[in-house]
Amino acid sequence: MLSREENELLTRGGPGTAMGALMRRYWIPALLAWELPEADCPPVRVTLLGERLVGFRDSAGRMGLVAEHCPHRGASLYFGRNEECGLRCVYHGWKFDVAGQCVDMPNEPAESTFKERVRLRAYPCAERGGVIWTYMGPPERQPALPELEWTLLPEPRRYASKRLQECNWLQAMEGGIDSSHISFLHRSFNLEATRLPNSQGQEYVRRDRHPRFEVHDVDYGLLIAARRTVDEEQYYWRITPWLMPWYTIIPPFGDNPIGGHAWVPADDEHCWAWSIDWHPARPLSATELATYHAGLGIHSALIPGTWRPQANQDNDYLIDRQSQRTTSTTGIVGISAQDCAVQESMGPIYDRTTEHLGTSDAAIIAARRRLLSAVRGLQHGQEPPGLDAASQRVRAASVVLPKGVPFYEGARDALVARPESYVASA
Amino acid sequence: MLSREENELLTRGGPGTAMGALMRRYWIPALLAWELPEADCPPVRVTLLGERLVGFRDSAGRMGLVAEHCPHRGASLYFGRNEECGLRCVYHGWKFDVAGQCVDMPNEPAESTFKERVRLRAYPCAERGGVIWTYMGPPERQPALPELEWTLLPEPRRYASKRLQECNWLQAMEGGIDSSHISFLHRSFNLEATRLPNSQGQEYVRRDRHPRFEVHDVDYGLLIAARRTVDEEQYYWRITPWLMPWYTIIPPFGDNPIGGHAWVPADDEHCWAWSIDWHPARPLSATELATYHAGLGIHSALIPGTWRPQANQDNDYLIDRQSQRTTSTTGIVGISAQDCAVQESMGPIYDRTTEHLGTSDAAIIAARRRLLSAVRGLQHGQEPPGLDAASQRVRAASVVLPKGVPFYEGARDALVARPESYVASA
Amino acid sequence: MLSREENELLTRGGPGTAMGALMRRYWIPALLAWELPEADCPPVRVTLLGERLVGFRDSAGRMGLVAEHCPHRGASLYFGRNEECGLRCVYHGWKFDVAGQCVDMPNEPAESTFKERVRLRAYPCAERGGVIWTYMGPPERQPALPELEWTLLPEPRRYASKRLQECNWLQAMEGGIDSSHISFLHRSFNLEATRLPNSQGQEYVRRDRHPRFEVHDVDYGLLIAARRTVDEEQYYWRITPWLMPWYTIIPPFGDNPIGGHAWVPADDEHCWAWSIDWHPARPLSATELATYHAGLGIHSALIPGTWRPQANQDNDYLIDRQSQRTTSTTGIVGISAQDCAVQESMGPIYDRTTEHLGTSDAAIIAARRRLLSAVRGLQHGQEPPGLDAASQRVRAASVVLPKGVPFYEGARDALVARPESYVASA
Repeated sequence: MLSREENELLTRGGPGTAMGALMRRYWIPALLAWELPEADCPPVRVTLLGERLVGFRDSAGRMGLVAEHCPHRGASLYFGRNEECGLRCVYHGWKFDVAGQCVDMPNEPAESTFKERVRLRAYPCAERGGVIWTYMGPPERQPALPELEWTLLPEPRRYASKRLQECNWLQAMEGGIDSSHISFLHRSFNLEATRLPNSQGQEYVRRDRHPRFEVHDVDYGLLIAARRTVDEEQYYWRITPWLMPWYTIIPPFGDNPIGGHAWVPADDEHCWAWSIDWHPARPLSATELATYHAGLGIHSALIPGTWRPQANQDNDYLIDRQSQRTTSTTGIVGISAQDCAVQESMGPIYDRTTEHLGTSDAAIIAARRRLLSAVRGLQHGQEPPGLDAASQRVRAASVVLPKGVPFYEGARDALVARPESYVASA
Repeated sequence: MLSREENELLTRGGPGTAMGALMRRYWIPALLAWELPEADCPPVRVTLLGERLVGFRDSAGRMGLVAEHCPHRGASLYFGRNEECGLRCVYHGWKFDVAGQCVDMPNEPAESTFKERVRLRAYPCAERGGVIWTYMGPPERQPALPELEWTLLPEPRRYASKRLQECNWLQAMEGGIDSSHISFLHRSFNLEATRLPNSQGQEYVRRDRHPRFEVHDVDYGLLIAARRTVDEEQYYWRITPWLMPWYTIIPPFGDNPIGGHAWVPADDEHCWAWSIDWHPARPLSATELATYHAGLGIHSALIPGTWRPQANQDNDYLIDRQSQRTTSTTGIVGISAQDCAVQESMGPIYDRTTEHLGTSDAAIIAARRRLLSAVRGLQHGQEPPGLDAASQRVRAASVVLPKGVPFYEGARDALVARPESYVASA
Repeated sequence: MLSREENELLTRGGPGTAMGALMRRYWIPALLAWELPEADCPPVRVTLLGERLVGFRDSAGRMGLVAEHCPHRGASLYFGRNEECGLRCVYHGWKFDVAGQCVDMPNEPAESTFKERVRLRAYPCAERGGVIWTYMGPPERQPALPELEWTLLPEPRRYASKRLQECNWLQAMEGGIDSSHISFLHRSFNLEATRLPNSQGQEYVRRDRHPRFEVHDVDYGLLIAARRTVDEEQYYWRITPWLMPWYTIIPPFGDNPIGGHAWVPADDEHCWAWSIDWHPARPLSATELATYHAGLGIHSALIPGTWRPQANQDNDYLIDRQSQRTTSTTGIVGISAQDCAVQESMGPIYDRTTEHLGTSDAAIIAARRRLLSAVRGLQHGQEPPGLDAASQRVRAASVVLPKGVPFYEGARDALVARPESYVASA
């Protein structure tokens, strides 16, 4: 439970907010690389942290992410013409380069120096891991590019998608670090249909449906572990890292791809739910890719031309009440639709002053505490945690350990990301 | 005309409002019985008096009406799984019984007593007259179930429907007690087409198109009478009871069913318009039922899957201007669509500070006075009027009386509801 | 750039605002004449300067424009029955004449004089130039009817249309007086396809793409001139008059019709964009009319039953990015859709506190100054400029003049409107 002030602090990310200032110190996943496929391609719109932006790729292939509205008289640069190394406003022809500098002002006299004094808000961009990243903070504080494992893998080994979720980023992210909901929200009643080959871990999970949760503070965020009893001497641990400010990683069963998310504010009532599957040691299989393209697993089938899932709050996520009786907890198809259903139903910005948290919410409590501490630290001049890119080289893991061994020690090696040197976990 | 303060007082019914406190002292029609047809059926959503609620029927057939959002982390229980005597939140599996008690918390340790301390706001329910009723007030003040005539009749003798009207409850109810609009709004120019068999009353109405209105205070509300001259010695009276806080009853012509309404706030800008036809002495005929099912008479044809009429403000109620010239006052088909057109066009919450009331608005003035008096009385510790269920056994009536006989005396007997012993009125 | 206060002052036109008071001193184009085609036709709705109004034509053919809501109990008179010299509210039958006087109150006693004291807000109407005009200001200050050239021509010589633009009136009007955007926003890359016969002026425009702008104050508003070099001794001038408070006139090339606009506030976030083509000396040709009916040129193809263009902000004005590369600046078809795209993309009410105006915005700066001066003048008791109808007899013109001759002197004769005596300009 949070106070009203704490809830406001954590859920507001626009310009001038404290949480917004914190988030702007990190690289932010902005666009899928294929949204800007080539030089001089059409510009695209994206709202991030309450700012309406336009992305484009210039004639030299450089990427730009700029304020949507032309500083002259405010027309949207989304309608702009992307030509000859700049995005030209169609209203009067003012043209801007990827750095936001006005480079042409055809409606002013040729001798005018006005254009040199006109700049458009612009953020640096970089492509990594199939994603175009941006940095919206103070230029002198720009950190190194992220080194999350999936960002370092070549294309056949990772697959990223995004959807627009219709609620505040925090309640979406809280779903991502909330291991205790998996056994209910995403439960299918047909065990055979969902059994993975060679996964002893899956068997442990089915046997012990009342895991205990442990949360361990690390420099970049949290390690969240679900502990299940294997036998009198051993525990089975499933460990989910949470990385500042919004990344989660899901331990796979067997030799399946690792899954991960980023939960990025669009505006305060919408967030970008990024979903990534990756395998450090092998290309994703045709079957796996077909599944992702179909919007299954942690991905979503979208309404064409939009980032909105086909199953959404207007159609009650296509719930099938008969299927809810016989097939799954929800009667809703797809992990992401199930997550959306519960998270969006909490309202556009969930009011945390009336909730009732239990022991299984320990990770959520810890993450809020870390976020509040980072926000307040920044206000007092402390650097935010997790900016060291090397610290992001972390992996989710599942391990069997003797009782008495702390999970973060016993799994120390398994938690290290090693692109190219993957060994299947338990 | 009301002051701004009075208008606010009467039109706001949410939690914490004075009018809301008054309304919560009465049983409230919440759902049609067929919305919860059987044990463990899917839950349904309903908003009442500004509160978002979920109704369900448990494995034992008991009905529950509970707050929509799970007290744990706020997911909607509409998506809940109705199973083994409780509604289970699909997010983490918390389960609630019809009384709102948390009866299972599978994500907490087995030995935890947390669940005993978690309750969901829940309101008692009862089924009567084909309707599921709820009581949202202080438990110690729960009155006896309503005894409106139609609630006491077996199914073949009554038919109830509801629609969502897109305006405040009060302007809808004012339409219901406003007999003077009938001759205009609902007028058809084709006398033959609308003539009922054996109705002398209808003839009186057509002959005298300038009725005088009299309003008589009774303990449960008002008797509103329209007086028309029959001959030098007699008046024809049509008497419409209004029962606190929102019931109206319409006198029939001849041996036709009696009609009635309840006007119940959903939120302040929407209300549930309940429409009921009943005949105390005989089953409704196949023709009558076919008419109601078709959304004619006082009922509405709805957009499937919604409570919204097919004729609504987005399509100007399907007005036909040619028909307005030749066939009816409005060119709109159906009594309920005609009512919606004028009442919704007054705006979401009608501003009564600029209206111009005339003598024919006497009933509206009287009802507002009664409501204001009841609200203020309750604030000063007085019990609301009309809580005595026996007092609700009242019927609309039409009678011919000698001039000089007060209508409420001359019609005293005809105004008493007598389920099973109906005698056709004039 | 304006201060926040100035921007508010110029963009708010509702009842009680300073700008609204100024605008209400002029005749306002309200409806197309064909919207009220005959006596007792159906009433129509229109919102002007934030007021919801209903227009009708009574049995004698007189036009009325009245407040939408019945003063009795607020029902919309749009649903009213237009009959026997009055518009009758369908709720209780109150009937109003074109002057707003209540002339029948059938639900009141015949001897009642109540109706004599009930009036509906009503504005005088007049038909001129295919348009129904209204005057919403103080009756004692009603000016003579407008004498804009197109209003004085018979039907075959002028064509008027309107569309609802989804932004504040001022940013729409600023587009109308902003000659410098023509060369960019409306530019087609296919010179041959857009070449008009016998237009030397078009050739001058193509040769000199950096016109200089001069703005000249006149009593009724502004003369805005774009100057291009013809040769060492001559300039080519294109002169656009702006008339208080919202009229613009576009100089034609060759013997083509003159174009003009009126930008009239519906509410503060929507405006009526009126578009008129006229030829003072000849009937519009079948080809020209076919073009206008198709929604081309300065007209718009509308969604049937609405005033909304088919190309609108919900479909990104049907932008074709391939066409934007090869055919036109925008990839959007139609001058009005191109204007809408940039003007609506500035937001519902453009914030002028952050813009960057250049030398080519001189006309906009001058118009704002004139409007602010007129608003403040009116507040201090000065009569608004441009009320003299004779002063509105002005025409756009294009002329070639020796260098050194001021355009407003050299073009003095060409700028005079002379219905019936047209001579094609350069």
